[in-house]
Amino acid sequence: MAASESASARNGRHSRDDVAETALRILDEYGLPDLTMRRLAAALDVQPSALYWHFPNKQTLLAELADRIVARGRPKPSARTDWVQRTRDETSALRDALLAYRDGAEVVSSTFALGLGASAPLARLTAAVESGGFDAETSRMAATALLHFILGHASHEQQRLQYDSLGVLADGATPDALDSDRDQADSFEFGVTLLVEGLAHHRVTR
Amino acid sequence: MAASESASARNGRHSRDDVAETALRILDEYGLPDLTMRRLAAALDVQPSALYWHFPNKQTLLAELADRIVARGRPKPSARTDWVQRTRDETSALRDALLAYRDGAEVVSSTFALGLGASAPLARLTAAVESGGFDAETSRMAATALLHFILGHASHEQQRLQYDSLGVLADGATPDALDSDRDQADSFEFGVTLLVEGLAHHRVTR
Repeated sequence: MAASESASARNGRHSRDDVAETALRILDEYGLPDLTMRRLAAALDVQPSALYWHFPNKQTLLAELADRIVARGRPKPSARTDWVQRTRDETSALRDALLAYRDGAEVVSSTFALGLGASAPLARLTAAVESGGFDAETSRMAATALLHFILGHASHEQQRLQYDSLGVLADGATPDALDSDRDQADSFEFGVTLLVEGLAHHRVTR
Repeated sequence: MAASESASARNGRHSRDDVAETALRILDEYGLPDLTMRRLAAALDVQPSALYWHFPNKQTLLAELADRIVARGRPKPSARTDWVQRTRDETSALRDALLAYRDGAEVVSSTFALGLGASAPLARLTAAVESGGFDAETSRMAATALLHFILGHASHEQQRLQYDSLGVLADGATPDALDSDRDQADSFEFGVTLLVEGLAHHRVTR
């Protein structure tokens, strides 16, 4: 019982899941710069030291958030077996997941760069491409290219939204063709189309 | 003469060019988070208020830095007229320019998102694609897709370098296929190939 009490004391009354979900809410409401361990502890009504029981540092916490964000980007299972559609479905689902949380693209990008997580999308994109009969190396490289495009596009879109809400967009920047949701979606789809058609063509010419 | 003396006093003894070049050196040496107006003023041996004569705020300064960074990404003029090679030359030159300065991709991405500058690469990429006979709308959309890919790829590469230098990469992250310079260059070229081949194919099938 002593060990359990001790764990419970260090643990606070919150589970790892509580902590992560509260952090996601703070991220979504205030953005990444305001997601501090101190603010998170205050929201949970515990001392900051209680958080380290679950997450030894902020990078580990952000990796957990990245995994939760991208977990939402799993397309509905479909009877379709066409690799092109499967790949497109993965890209759209991932974009939607990144955009569902404020600064989602930044959290996932930095976790991916750290090698701490966010590897599920790369694995799923690779599998989707590989289902078209491409070799493992080509599939992985194509998935990597798709992922860089998706993260680059979503980061740009979220940065613009944030600057717009802060009122710091340059004069004349707002009516830019990149701005409306519709245009952003079209621009995203066009980039994915080029990458996927490029890959299909790559096979034909080899 | 009074007006001139007054301007000179506010101006300090530094030209706008001095200020921007010193800021670029600080960026390259210490990174974006440490490029503050205070540190810049100290490096120039002036009061922070003297900087605002040239740059009314930090965003305007960063926009100037972004323009200087991408100005280096202008490929050597070539006798080649092939749109594919011209487009590839633009993408490679832009990547090199982003990687030439610490946090270069982040400075250019945020300026581009703010609509404050960094528009030269989009214009040059659009012109390169348009030289292949594509209509203006398709050329602009293709250039936008290329730019998102280039910025996404370069950001990832620079983040990894930075995390590596800080020693915070996750165990097992370092030997990742994305890590070596050679692999990064190959990965970049492959993504550009898919986008350009996709565009060539897009024309064929329309």
